[in-house]
Amino acid sequence: MAYDQSKNFRSQNDLGLSGKADKNQKRAINKDGTFNVRRYQTADHFYHRLLTMSWTRFFLLMLSLFLIVNCMYATIYILIGIDKLGGVENLDIVQDFLSAFFFSAQTMTTVGYGAMHPVGVAASTMAAIESLTGLLGFAIATGLMYGRFTRPSAGIRFTEKAIIAPYKEGLKSFQFRLANERNNHVFEPEVLVIYTSLIKRDDGKIIRNFLPMKLELSTIYFLSMNWTIAHPINEESPLFGKTKKDLLEEDAEILVLLKLFNDAFAQTVYTRTSFKATEIDWDVKYVLPYNIDENGNTHFYLEKLDETISA
Amino acid sequence: MAYDQSKNFRSQNDLGLSGKADKNQKRAINKDGTFNVRRYQTADHFYHRLLTMSWTRFFLLMLSLFLIVNCMYATIYILIGIDKLGGVENLDIVQDFLSAFFFSAQTMTTVGYGAMHPVGVAASTMAAIESLTGLLGFAIATGLMYGRFTRPSAGIRFTEKAIIAPYKEGLKSFQFRLANERNNHVFEPEVLVIYTSLIKRDDGKIIRNFLPMKLELSTIYFLSMNWTIAHPINEESPLFGKTKKDLLEEDAEILVLLKLFNDAFAQTVYTRTSFKATEIDWDVKYVLPYNIDENGNTHFYLEKLDETISA
Amino acid sequence: MAYDQSKNFRSQNDLGLSGKADKNQKRAINKDGTFNVRRYQTADHFYHRLLTMSWTRFFLLMLSLFLIVNCMYATIYILIGIDKLGGVENLDIVQDFLSAFFFSAQTMTTVGYGAMHPVGVAASTMAAIESLTGLLGFAIATGLMYGRFTRPSAGIRFTEKAIIAPYKEGLKSFQFRLANERNNHVFEPEVLVIYTSLIKRDDGKIIRNFLPMKLELSTIYFLSMNWTIAHPINEESPLFGKTKKDLLEEDAEILVLLKLFNDAFAQTVYTRTSFKATEIDWDVKYVLPYNIDENGNTHFYLEKLDETISA
Amino acid sequence: MAYDQSKNFRSQNDLGLSGKADKNQKRAINKDGTFNVRRYQTADHFYHRLLTMSWTRFFLLMLSLFLIVNCMYATIYILIGIDKLGGVENLDIVQDFLSAFFFSAQTMTTVGYGAMHPVGVAASTMAAIESLTGLLGFAIATGLMYGRFTRPSAGIRFTEKAIIAPYKEGLKSFQFRLANERNNHVFEPEVLVIYTSLIKRDDGKIIRNFLPMKLELSTIYFLSMNWTIAHPINEESPLFGKTKKDLLEEDAEILVLLKLFNDAFAQTVYTRTSFKATEIDWDVKYVLPYNIDENGNTHFYLEKLDETISA
Repeated sequence: MAYDQSKNFRSQNDLGLSGKADKNQKRAINKDGTFNVRRYQTADHFYHRLLTMSWTRFFLLMLSLFLIVNCMYATIYILIGIDKLGGVENLDIVQDFLSAFFFSAQTMTTVGYGAMHPVGVAASTMAAIESLTGLLGFAIATGLMYGRFTRPSAGIRFTEKAIIAPYKEGLKSFQFRLANERNNHVFEPEVLVIYTSLIKRDDGKIIRNFLPMKLELSTIYFLSMNWTIAHPINEESPLFGKTKKDLLEEDAEILVLLKLFNDAFAQTVYTRTSFKATEIDWDVKYVLPYNIDENGNTHFYLEKLDETISA
Repeated sequence: MAYDQSKNFRSQNDLGLSGKADKNQKRAINKDGTFNVRRYQTADHFYHRLLTMSWTRFFLLMLSLFLIVNCMYATIYILIGIDKLGGVENLDIVQDFLSAFFFSAQTMTTVGYGAMHPVGVAASTMAAIESLTGLLGFAIATGLMYGRFTRPSAGIRFTEKAIIAPYKEGLKSFQFRLANERNNHVFEPEVLVIYTSLIKRDDGKIIRNFLPMKLELSTIYFLSMNWTIAHPINEESPLFGKTKKDLLEEDAEILVLLKLFNDAFAQTVYTRTSFKATEIDWDVKYVLPYNIDENGNTHFYLEKLDETISA
Repeated sequence: MAYDQSKNFRSQNDLGLSGKADKNQKRAINKDGTFNVRRYQTADHFYHRLLTMSWTRFFLLMLSLFLIVNCMYATIYILIGIDKLGGVENLDIVQDFLSAFFFSAQTMTTVGYGAMHPVGVAASTMAAIESLTGLLGFAIATGLMYGRFTRPSAGIRFTEKAIIAPYKEGLKSFQFRLANERNNHVFEPEVLVIYTSLIKRDDGKIIRNFLPMKLELSTIYFLSMNWTIAHPINEESPLFGKTKKDLLEEDAEILVLLKLFNDAFAQTVYTRTSFKATEIDWDVKYVLPYNIDENGNTHFYLEKLDETISA
Repeated sequence: MAYDQSKNFRSQNDLGLSGKADKNQKRAINKDGTFNVRRYQTADHFYHRLLTMSWTRFFLLMLSLFLIVNCMYATIYILIGIDKLGGVENLDIVQDFLSAFFFSAQTMTTVGYGAMHPVGVAASTMAAIESLTGLLGFAIATGLMYGRFTRPSAGIRFTEKAIIAPYKEGLKSFQFRLANERNNHVFEPEVLVIYTSLIKRDDGKIIRNFLPMKLELSTIYFLSMNWTIAHPINEESPLFGKTKKDLLEEDAEILVLLKLFNDAFAQTVYTRTSFKATEIDWDVKYVLPYNIDENGNTHFYLEKLDETISA
């Protein structure tokens, strides 16, 4: 479904953002694309949290679980009786627990050397249950790691700052750029850009207002290098006639929603960013981030994405 | 594909719901979003059933299968001869069966301590087959658990009741709210709301009728907090001029179809709910479920979703 | 993307079907939904073939591979020397091969009892390689089984025959029905129906012609029970004024393309069927396949899908 | 989202391709569908690279990792003391290292024969950690192999060359063909064809220009055999009145974007190709790549896709 670029927003309801006006209000969309809302009584989907935590945390969690579960099983084997683990010499309690722990680890991972092995019904039953739960546990770990690897991410780099740059026919334009920061293919990226600021209503009440910003081009066919999104500042623009100071005073924030098809994951991915009034450079223009060498090859430099010169 | 909000329904055929009128007819859509139809001769896709059963049932099923299959293999090893399991002392039949059972479990889980091991062609062949089937079986279990974890669910909380609330220009409106009950992102939610009631046709026959309800807004760009869906009760509305008693008498039910893109699963998800005449509160309005604190942070309280005050 | 229902087909090219006229030509779409074309020099994607073969064939293939690979490894262990497998008594060549085979099976499945174990560098190296390839092999099997389970299928039952039934205002209509044969949810099913027959061109050449058939309704919101697709036979219809004999003579075939969103797989699925002139019953009408009992519960009977009475 | 076939491109920005004019510039899209751009400071998503490397490289990488990690663990076991591995005779350092290596391999793959087994806390701890990491490592390998198998590919064969062929009403047309090179189903393929060439602007500067090419048909319902894409060369066409020499001089390249739904993967797939001026054959026409035999069966020959005769 393509974004409706021309639609006017009647209320904050249209966006799912707060329309309450408050001078101190923080930005609506954080630089990492998350929404700036603290949510209560909602829950993380447990799977989702396991998918999004860092790899370090994930492996520490796996290791902790492995230790805890093995300690639990070791305790059970001790309670059954250390003499029910064949090949274990009955020494002091610490040695026994360590033996039971290692037997448990060898059982859960199904390595089962056999130098230690269960003897009798109780120990054999626990060992059977442990190897079963071990296998199911590692099955879950397998699924989680696959899920972590294949979790689609947009892989898009936006410019840190937007700019006010010269445009056709003496006009100025609001611009920002984006590029694919990976070597895969991105198809049909589409943006929606929304201007939000504090305005005084007829009844004197100050509310937060939302206005779409008309773009020169809101979608392209594919993203092989960079894409400059431009909004011409003509009479229809919410930026028309405004200065940097005006934007600061009305607590402006420009919201950017991006939707694209990422070839690496074969999926549609959504991402977002926003530019506060302080994140807009005035009267500069972007430098081309690519060149063509004498052999006709095109070279694209991602690090030049933010590069500007004064206009 | 966006829902066609303006379309009129010519018959129940348009919805795939029964159009037969019956005073006793139960609700069309249950509160959990399932359709209220008992289906015969249809079949569950086996995979689908394994995916949707509770985790308790799923693990009990896994455990039962493990027990049953091991008992089967234990019987085979007994039939081959307990003396073909090296390391097992030939005792009474119960002891032998238990030994065979534990040998089977150690083989199927591939733990293979070796304190018990197959001797001779028959036992070795069975053990080879058992470890192969064990591995394939756990492969299936791995796939199932991954499928269960990644099964997309909408994760949407609807208000328990809809309301009739004041609206612009002296009008009233039919409203309900929804919110994301998890901490992930939901994009482009879209609703279709349908009014169904019993009406008397020109020929005197009572039939069930279906009418679309025009919405102030049928889709938003993303769902960062809550979304109030509002249907203005003007002359075009099927609710125009009606009282709570009217709705009860014509056995009204308001069907809600919701479609959204869930970021956690990177997939389109569908969900449904419905409001019977008894599930509509009259002349109340919703309380804002969020506030902005002195530091400018927005706080959203899911438990306030159902909160109303008299209008 | 919604089907364009009004579009006229200029040539067979529009459909990707043969437009060559031949009295003997077989049906374009088989009853199982495959296209009736024999393809040369094309290839099955190997993964796709492993996904679509029957479960019996799949397990036989797995078992054969297991046997073949173990025989290969057994041969290698024999060549290295049976004395390099600790715990194996050197007997005749058949016994040795069987021992090597079982050692191989215990290594590949990682059961590793240890009653047999590798001795020396050559045997230990082969055992290490075998257990590695065994694990990777079972990893592939795991993936394949998951892929087989999650392969989306439409799960739609079409009526075996289409009918010519009475319609509104004295007209007749071409009708067929479909239903979900599973207990999951199907959303936004959409059909495209195409009439194909032999016609004589102005230059006397006989060609195969393709015409869209206008439908009363080409999409519904969800499929909770059955859906009757109706094409009114008015002056615009390619069936207008034709008899059963006419259809047989012009070798008519009505092609049906169906697209839907299947909730169980959370994916869009395509399916097809077709009705030849001999698969159309004239002057009958469908019986309702559901009823509402005295408690207001709706009961749907899949086996009544094909039931008709004379009109 | 359907391609907008009528839209004019205002700048290279519309496509994400370089608009800088350079006589030496290489083709924009390579024959394998990749974009001809060298990218700097971008990164491969590690998962993506593991997914797209050849199977040979992938297995060599797996084997190398297996060797390296086992060598690391072998070193650790040597440092702990070879006498802590039960069942290993203390010989020279090379023999000890090999024993430690094989013990490590038996532990990591969880085969655990037990002829060698850890003795004491240090060795047992390392063995527990190794079997845990081994299982997690093979879990990752399982995920990767599944990802490699299920990675959607278009499976489309384009003709090597495009042609200029006779068309209706004395016109000529630009044509190329495509076919599914596998035996699965392809639905709703859609193409966008763009003409790019060097032109002299009013100010004398030479720039690269982009123009859409209007097609007779830009999408079909399914691809059961082949599909010929035709662009009529009328006054609106960028090819109108041009000769082969003209195209060479203006360094023409015809870009083809293709989007389709592949049934085998149940996913939307994108692919691309392009035709340089030298890859266009003039005044030929395509030969039908299928025939219908005396039994009415249709036979399609993929190898005939490129076959032409002079027109």
